[in-house]
Amino acid sequence: MRKTLSYPVEALKDYVLRFFTALGVPEIDARIAADVLVSADLRGVNSHGIIRLHTYYGNRLRQGYIDPMSPVKTLLESPATLALDGGNGMGQVVAYRAMSRCIEMADETGLAVTTVRNSNHFGIAGYYAMMALPQDMIGISLTNSRPLVTPTFGSRPALGTNPIAVAIPAGEERPFVLDMATSIVPIGRVAVYEKAGEPIPRGWGLNANGELTTDPAEVINGGSLLPLGGPAELRGYKGYGLSLLVDLLSGVLAGAAFGDQVGAPSKERPADVGHFFAAIKIENFRPVDFFKRDMDDYLRTLKATPKLPGQDRIYIHGEKEFELAEHYQREGVPLMTEIVESLKAAGEEAGVPFDLAPVG
Amino acid sequence: MRKTLSYPVEALKDYVLRFFTALGVPEIDARIAADVLVSADLRGVNSHGIIRLHTYYGNRLRQGYIDPMSPVKTLLESPATLALDGGNGMGQVVAYRAMSRCIEMADETGLAVTTVRNSNHFGIAGYYAMMALPQDMIGISLTNSRPLVTPTFGSRPALGTNPIAVAIPAGEERPFVLDMATSIVPIGRVAVYEKAGEPIPRGWGLNANGELTTDPAEVINGGSLLPLGGPAELRGYKGYGLSLLVDLLSGVLAGAAFGDQVGAPSKERPADVGHFFAAIKIENFRPVDFFKRDMDDYLRTLKATPKLPGQDRIYIHGEKEFELAEHYQREGVPLMTEIVESLKAAGEEAGVPFDLAPVG
Repeated sequence: MRKTLSYPVEALKDYVLRFFTALGVPEIDARIAADVLVSADLRGVNSHGIIRLHTYYGNRLRQGYIDPMSPVKTLLESPATLALDGGNGMGQVVAYRAMSRCIEMADETGLAVTTVRNSNHFGIAGYYAMMALPQDMIGISLTNSRPLVTPTFGSRPALGTNPIAVAIPAGEERPFVLDMATSIVPIGRVAVYEKAGEPIPRGWGLNANGELTTDPAEVINGGSLLPLGGPAELRGYKGYGLSLLVDLLSGVLAGAAFGDQVGAPSKERPADVGHFFAAIKIENFRPVDFFKRDMDDYLRTLKATPKLPGQDRIYIHGEKEFELAEHYQREGVPLMTEIVESLKAAGEEAGVPFDLAPVG
Repeated sequence: MRKTLSYPVEALKDYVLRFFTALGVPEIDARIAADVLVSADLRGVNSHGIIRLHTYYGNRLRQGYIDPMSPVKTLLESPATLALDGGNGMGQVVAYRAMSRCIEMADETGLAVTTVRNSNHFGIAGYYAMMALPQDMIGISLTNSRPLVTPTFGSRPALGTNPIAVAIPAGEERPFVLDMATSIVPIGRVAVYEKAGEPIPRGWGLNANGELTTDPAEVINGGSLLPLGGPAELRGYKGYGLSLLVDLLSGVLAGAAFGDQVGAPSKERPADVGHFFAAIKIENFRPVDFFKRDMDDYLRTLKATPKLPGQDRIYIHGEKEFELAEHYQREGVPLMTEIVESLKAAGEEAGVPFDLAPVG
């Protein structure tokens, strides 16, 4: 067990807000970005949380790779469809605006899709899909990302880990929230093994020569990730197809970068990340009460499926994350002491000291 | 190599048309069902083709489990959304009508979703997604199916192999057509190994005790299939999540049967299969020419990715099937002699003799 310190959720959000505003992000936008970022930690997806604050968002803002003042522009618009240009703004802010408009449109039309070009890394895809839940809508959120995944029979990365997130409301049960990279694991998961000095399971990734490796450093330094499914025999080309599908919708349909062109940004060349959002209003298809009753029935039946020996629980997607979030909301969000130290050092340098008092 | 006889595509379609009309299917509908059925053989998906004509569709029509005269009814309708009741009609006919209307709606609104309840097994999901291609639209086709797949940590089947099909047009390149079961393999693939007397790869399925097995008969007789990804360590819960997602959209949202309730039909209880169709008009998001140029670029770049040793080609989804279809269109569709014999026997019994002359 690694040593951790826990911090109240609201204190963490407030720190991130102060950090972003100090870097020139308007307060209203900084509040959105802080909520998305800390929500990742709250849901246990710490690879997409505050760990990235300085190295990722902070550096990019400081170096001018992201333009926090740029407005989101409408390119094409109809009652059910909307194509946006994110103006190279913060991914979280652009995505939040895009999904908000998608939900407004779906409230009128029953169904809407919003595409976004010229955006940046937006954090956890599930956040935006879940924005549809309080409206009794189904939310969908897709994004492309830098090339890390090999197509089946390939030896070099050509596709992103391009996640699929879908949120569907239930009644008394928790909502279904699928939020998955289309690779077996995202690169952040491999990095966790590297930091812990542990080998990764065989099958997750290839080294620079296209050979299976259990050394996380080999995957991170010039290697690649395998698509969901793994080798061809176990139908890895389906995971490859899902990764490609996500990029065709969020990259090509949006008119953003795609494939091996989705890159780490520079001063000359924005990341040009693309997103795809959809919202489906349930009552346009059947009464919401009936829908929720059936959702509850289904999820309960699934959980009651006979279990494998040694297993005592079948999970619904999102369930573990909801439970973690409830726990962390009460007890504080745990951060590894190494992360806390790096937050303190980087905060000092940025003039926004990480001075929060840990819980307990 | 198993012995086969090849038949002209049009002759096969004509035979299926005659067979269905003899069983009381109106000619216009029989023509649709014949086209869907033979298209599966043409694309090399023979598990969903003419092999099922008698045992599956013929028997169900004769026993009155499917009502070929029942009209498709509209339940709820708006410019972008449509909820239908398939009236327990033939799955192919109901699905064809539903996707046709979805495309018409998307032509007006840029985007449409049609759900269907009270339908039957509709054959290959990709057929309906591909109907969007000539309209420069993206087509999506989902369906639920009888329970064959175990949720992660479960030992018994609780979900269908629920396929996802998405078709996206390109310019000079062939379209992207992803048409995949959300299990590692569909049950028909396991049946092919059983008929050939060969073991299946370890990881595809479980026996009745929830143990991994390489014996196809054990999977078919009371066993189950694993979701895409396989065991938890390799993220099989993502495949489980995709299977569940498809059922939540095509079963629960449509108001059809779902989960372990999607069954083989009887006189008392229709199959109540549910479908979900969507169409997205590309020009509502960006000019179609630019979209197709980028599609071509992307697919060519992917195919040029460095290959693993011993591999000389990277495939785009649907590419193999398009090539097979072109070949079979010229040379005839090959059917195993055992299949031809069973078609002859069943055709005799049904009063529609299988009297086609093989090619060459």
